[in-house]
Amino acid sequence: MAEDLADFEKLRAELNKEILECGHLGIKRFFALDTQAYEPGALPAKVKELLGLVASTVLRCDDCITYHLLRCGQEGWKRAEVIDALNVALIVGGSITVPHVRRAFARMHEIAGLRP
Amino acid sequence: MAEDLADFEKLRAELNKEILECGHLGIKRFFALDTQAYEPGALPAKVKELLGLVASTVLRCDDCITYHLLRCGQEGWKRAEVIDALNVALIVGGSITVPHVRRAFARMHEIAGLRP
Amino acid sequence: MAEDLADFEKLRAELNKEILECGHLGIKRFFALDTQAYEPGALPAKVKELLGLVASTVLRCDDCITYHLLRCGQEGWKRAEVIDALNVALIVGGSITVPHVRRAFARMHEIAGLRP
Amino acid sequence: MAEDLADFEKLRAELNKEILECGHLGIKRFFALDTQAYEPGALPAKVKELLGLVASTVLRCDDCITYHLLRCGQEGWKRAEVIDALNVALIVGGSITVPHVRRAFARMHEIAGLRP
Amino acid sequence: MAEDLADFEKLRAELNKEILECGHLGIKRFFALDTQAYEPGALPAKVKELLGLVASTVLRCDDCITYHLLRCGQEGWKRAEVIDALNVALIVGGSITVPHVRRAFARMHEIAGLRP
Amino acid sequence: MAEDLADFEKLRAELNKEILECGHLGIKRFFALDTQAYEPGALPAKVKELLGLVASTVLRCDDCITYHLLRCGQEGWKRAEVIDALNVALIVGGSITVPHVRRAFARMHEIAGLRP
Repeated sequence: MAEDLADFEKLRAELNKEILECGHLGIKRFFALDTQAYEPGALPAKVKELLGLVASTVLRCDDCITYHLLRCGQEGWKRAEVIDALNVALIVGGSITVPHVRRAFARMHEIAGLRP
Repeated sequence: MAEDLADFEKLRAELNKEILECGHLGIKRFFALDTQAYEPGALPAKVKELLGLVASTVLRCDDCITYHLLRCGQEGWKRAEVIDALNVALIVGGSITVPHVRRAFARMHEIAGLRP
Repeated sequence: MAEDLADFEKLRAELNKEILECGHLGIKRFFALDTQAYEPGALPAKVKELLGLVASTVLRCDDCITYHLLRCGQEGWKRAEVIDALNVALIVGGSITVPHVRRAFARMHEIAGLRP
Repeated sequence: MAEDLADFEKLRAELNKEILECGHLGIKRFFALDTQAYEPGALPAKVKELLGLVASTVLRCDDCITYHLLRCGQEGWKRAEVIDALNVALIVGGSITVPHVRRAFARMHEIAGLRP
Repeated sequence: MAEDLADFEKLRAELNKEILECGHLGIKRFFALDTQAYEPGALPAKVKELLGLVASTVLRCDDCITYHLLRCGQEGWKRAEVIDALNVALIVGGSITVPHVRRAFARMHEIAGLRP
Repeated sequence: MAEDLADFEKLRAELNKEILECGHLGIKRFFALDTQAYEPGALPAKVKELLGLVASTVLRCDDCITYHLLRCGQEGWKRAEVIDALNVALIVGGSITVPHVRRAFARMHEIAGLRP
């Protein structure tokens, strides 16, 4: 892993701030829509975070996986449930997702509620 | 849409049968693992089908979307909930998923519980 | 090609209408953002449509390619310029994009300003 | 399947001809490089076609799969060997490749040496 | 970011040299075609670099984004124009591209003409 | 390169062990199927490793490329043959694979039988 979770969150927050203040309204609105997509709607936020985790895993984005693992822990998903979701992603996405699943397991060491 | 739902299911079943009978044990076992991934485990089958739908949408596979829409209807997800999941996929996957979301809306016309 | 350009546009418009009227605000807002992304900003609309065409080609979405070819023709790009953009996409995306480039050439037969 | 093998080959040849005659030297050279990549080199042509088939399957391009299946049959690969290669692709690429594997099995009905 | 721009360029140049001298004619020709794709043709080099940037962003390749950002700066694109192009990529490619857009913003700190 | 080959193998082994011992039977079975896919069958293990390398390269997974390069060296593929396979991947996958091909060349410095 390139960085621990605190460093990841700090860098992510700094760059998001720079992007939101860059003056492009379209990007700002997309960031707002992205946030809203995980807020309670017809589906509860808890389910949506698990959807985000699986989407991030099959699309193989480590930063996105880290973010949604963190949120899944906050929403109260248990380790066994997150692992069961990662299995769906592994079967859909195949062995090419394995390095990302490995890093997801490593990242869970840092997240309350998802530790072994 | 290239075919209606009945034709899709018939062709899918015929070719799956041919693949399972082709004599390759590895493929046969993968098909079994694929089925098992959506059976109740730490997560209920209902949640897993929604995960499968979102994974299929961000990876842009129409046949996979059709299959998981059908299963989501069978598992009791409501139209508004499925649409809320498709919105997560749309935000994660971007406008390149829009043609697949359009075809998902068309396909829902044929699925009990997901019709407008 | 599965359908001619008129059929493509009709089906696309019908399903877009159904999606926009389905009652999901997030999807509606994303469709608006998608439209706005190609409106004049720091870059003119003409350049943005060519960006959309290349993005659609490397991501291998035939419907998206058809749409942006149509818009590129409307914005005044010449056939040779569109082909030069498709070459960038072909080099970036590799031979896996070739079937989509073939269909792009077939589609240009139907688009004013892009015909051979 | 949208078309039989003869129609596929005819349309492919017609559009390739149009592309090669469109006057863009870069595209013409890429098509030549693409052909040369499968000619005997450090690796024999037979092995290269199997590499092309697996690459096409994990990238999920039906037209590319059809083309390489045809060439694999011509190069003398047996049905069981092609299926073993498709299994590698299925494991690497996951269940999202299944619809393409199904269509590969259907396509093999039309290819000498690869029929059941 | 794993490395600063000077280190990136040094490592890239060293490995490109090794690849070009490895004795494989096909690879050497592809590298030449890749260079030529961005030279002035029906489209000017400036437009082509922006196409390369958007293609790299939707395909989520950080090294490719860095390279094309550098070239976009050299070709005279302004920061606001590059950001407008990144917005097209963000809308086409969705939130899965956000970490790459963040790194693009960080990288622009090092590129003359693209700094905030 | 983020890490040398010994560190890569150590971290990979540790995390694979954690995953296999996490108690999810589906994941455990998938890992077994993944291993079996490269064992001798209708195709010899040597050919399968080259298929795995090309699949990993077009799907742009550095860890997967490292693993299959190592296995290709062990199976007796020569440097020129591996480079010829990478050329197929480069043509299929396009310039977006170039950074991964660069890292593959760097990685070969560490692998017996594949050094320049």
